[in-house]
Amino acid sequence: MKSDYAKGDGVKKSNLKKIGIADTMFARGDMGTLAEQTIKDSDYDVEIVRYTVPGVKDLPVACKKLFDEQNCDIVLAFGMPGSAAVDKMCSHEASLGIGQVQLMTNKHILEVFVHEDETETDTELAKVMHNRTVKHTMNALYLLFNPEEIRKKAGTGERQGFANAKSFKL
Amino acid sequence: MKSDYAKGDGVKKSNLKKIGIADTMFARGDMGTLAEQTIKDSDYDVEIVRYTVPGVKDLPVACKKLFDEQNCDIVLAFGMPGSAAVDKMCSHEASLGIGQVQLMTNKHILEVFVHEDETETDTELAKVMHNRTVKHTMNALYLLFNPEEIRKKAGTGERQGFANAKSFKL
Amino acid sequence: MKSDYAKGDGVKKSNLKKIGIADTMFARGDMGTLAEQTIKDSDYDVEIVRYTVPGVKDLPVACKKLFDEQNCDIVLAFGMPGSAAVDKMCSHEASLGIGQVQLMTNKHILEVFVHEDETETDTELAKVMHNRTVKHTMNALYLLFNPEEIRKKAGTGERQGFANAKSFKL
Amino acid sequence: MKSDYAKGDGVKKSNLKKIGIADTMFARGDMGTLAEQTIKDSDYDVEIVRYTVPGVKDLPVACKKLFDEQNCDIVLAFGMPGSAAVDKMCSHEASLGIGQVQLMTNKHILEVFVHEDETETDTELAKVMHNRTVKHTMNALYLLFNPEEIRKKAGTGERQGFANAKSFKL
Amino acid sequence: MKSDYAKGDGVKKSNLKKIGIADTMFARGDMGTLAEQTIKDSDYDVEIVRYTVPGVKDLPVACKKLFDEQNCDIVLAFGMPGSAAVDKMCSHEASLGIGQVQLMTNKHILEVFVHEDETETDTELAKVMHNRTVKHTMNALYLLFNPEEIRKKAGTGERQGFANAKSFKL
Repeated sequence: MKSDYAKGDGVKKSNLKKIGIADTMFARGDMGTLAEQTIKDSDYDVEIVRYTVPGVKDLPVACKKLFDEQNCDIVLAFGMPGSAAVDKMCSHEASLGIGQVQLMTNKHILEVFVHEDETETDTELAKVMHNRTVKHTMNALYLLFNPEEIRKKAGTGERQGFANAKSFKL
Repeated sequence: MKSDYAKGDGVKKSNLKKIGIADTMFARGDMGTLAEQTIKDSDYDVEIVRYTVPGVKDLPVACKKLFDEQNCDIVLAFGMPGSAAVDKMCSHEASLGIGQVQLMTNKHILEVFVHEDETETDTELAKVMHNRTVKHTMNALYLLFNPEEIRKKAGTGERQGFANAKSFKL
Repeated sequence: MKSDYAKGDGVKKSNLKKIGIADTMFARGDMGTLAEQTIKDSDYDVEIVRYTVPGVKDLPVACKKLFDEQNCDIVLAFGMPGSAAVDKMCSHEASLGIGQVQLMTNKHILEVFVHEDETETDTELAKVMHNRTVKHTMNALYLLFNPEEIRKKAGTGERQGFANAKSFKL
Repeated sequence: MKSDYAKGDGVKKSNLKKIGIADTMFARGDMGTLAEQTIKDSDYDVEIVRYTVPGVKDLPVACKKLFDEQNCDIVLAFGMPGSAAVDKMCSHEASLGIGQVQLMTNKHILEVFVHEDETETDTELAKVMHNRTVKHTMNALYLLFNPEEIRKKAGTGERQGFANAKSFKL
Repeated sequence: MKSDYAKGDGVKKSNLKKIGIADTMFARGDMGTLAEQTIKDSDYDVEIVRYTVPGVKDLPVACKKLFDEQNCDIVLAFGMPGSAAVDKMCSHEASLGIGQVQLMTNKHILEVFVHEDETETDTELAKVMHNRTVKHTMNALYLLFNPEEIRKKAGTGERQGFANAKSFKL
């Protein structure tokens, strides 16, 4: 449920959990909107705050502002680093910042990065983006409302974007 | 609008948003002055504070001082890392610092770095510098005054410096 | 001893030391449950708090929450980074975060990462996971209750996962 | 002007700006003493505090102590990383620390590192060390007393250690 | 002088400087004990606090605890990173943490790491470990009691573990 909708139906906003969605202009597909739709299609009633920035290096402070200024309870950060060496370094720097924000706020940020060179074709890339976005959006909802869903898959080789890996008994 | 001009026309400075411009002697083109001109040519009325330092590794604290001592609302950080391995490491270290300042201040810094080896010729390099400077200067203005301009380009493959990338529907 | 058990036997929980276990869905074997079992099979009476997250990059804040919100005295962080370059970077970012949490809390986190490419076969990998999990779980118990067990092995080439290395006199 | 001299001439020390010089035993030339001499030969009247440590990784806390315990206004940090891979990593770690100190103190540290493999011969290396030391010492003085000297060279390809680069109009 | 000895001879412990020794089980030689012996053989009267942890990544928080919980004035951190790529990354992560602790405490930690692949043979490796341990232990004592010993070797190419490098006049 989006902020403006929340106002309309008389629910006290302070009782609703808030999910932040931080995304970029740089990405080659609109993962943020897909995440919004996934949340709306789910059974969970949450408020969504969307914040778009130019590129992945702008995501960490965007996430921090979503926590500090918008009181989000969890944030999904969508980015799509390019394939050049300099892009990979940007991605690393963004990830370090996203890690740091979590430690400053004691809140989770699920980093949903799809690297431009993960697949051979754009068609496959779009599939990875779709799958990873939907799965991590559900993970965010589970972390907020139903951590047991995550817990019961501990050590099972669960993947987002591609097929799950084989797991084995220890 | 520059600081000294602001004094002249009786506008109360405290009502004006402030953009910091941090740049270096090391860069091989004056991106800072181009950014000043871009701001003046825009419709947005802001105060500009310019701070030049020797090289990219001096930028993070320059940005921090622009926020803490000059009360800037956003900062543009211009740098031009060289092509040697040691220069790339310097660039990485500068970027990490710039990331950290944003988390310490909850304010955006748009990092406008042009890497000396992004193009084959100096002519192309100057074009990239020009395009990236102008586009990111506008991004800074949008983030301050008109975030919807950024929001509506979410996931569209927007680039600064080169042509935009192809985007696809998820 | 698990939390619910602790309630049952009338021991005041505030006197019991608490071990946090942070682990992931991504790992291909359930090291967290093996660690729980190792603790229960030991002579040490502790409370266990388990927290499972999607992947290794979610571990640092999970550890922080185990300290800050669950009052754990030490945490074991289990992860299994994949073999792709991007996975190795994720692992590095996770490790940096885990390091940072320790400095923020003045508490130990034993990072038990098994890299997917440490062995040739899955059978060997499972053995490494088993051995490393059990040994580091014991190390966590020693750090809490019996640091002299660690102290007397100083500089002896002790390994977890593989055979110990040869040590020599200085 | 050195601390002891400052006492002698009746100038109130609290009115004098203080420059810290942090350097290492590891470096193969005494850049710290050259910096001291450069400052004394300049027109600027400042107090100098010198602090020598074993190697580059000891520089960040040395700089921090020069700010916190000696009230320096700016610090010059001289180091000479070796050419082995492990030395380059040490240099990177030192630089990250030096970056962090600046953000903790809102003060500049000019990092004057000369890498052992920047030149083919020791003679050239000594020249680079000399030139970079003198130029960055002057930059420190300009940042303290005369930032306009730095400002007017914005984007001009200014280098320390080697000849300036070619700059171009944007 | 060790803690227990200090109690025995009636010296008020609060007047004694304290050196922390943090070391690992992983190292293939007992550098910590050699450091203790070096201190006892020196002319300096200090209290020693020893803290052994599993591996290098456990050293940063061990150092932090030596400062915060044991009131050490300086710490020597001994580690021996292995030669695999993952070991080198661990070493880097440990070093970053050790750097950070110093900035959080304004105290020196001398990082005495001997990399398993610094020499061809174990015999040479043991020599490097011995030499580096003794020299850095003396450096720690000098930093605490006699910084002029360090100062007078500024820029002289002083090495620990191997022969000193050639230095030249600037």
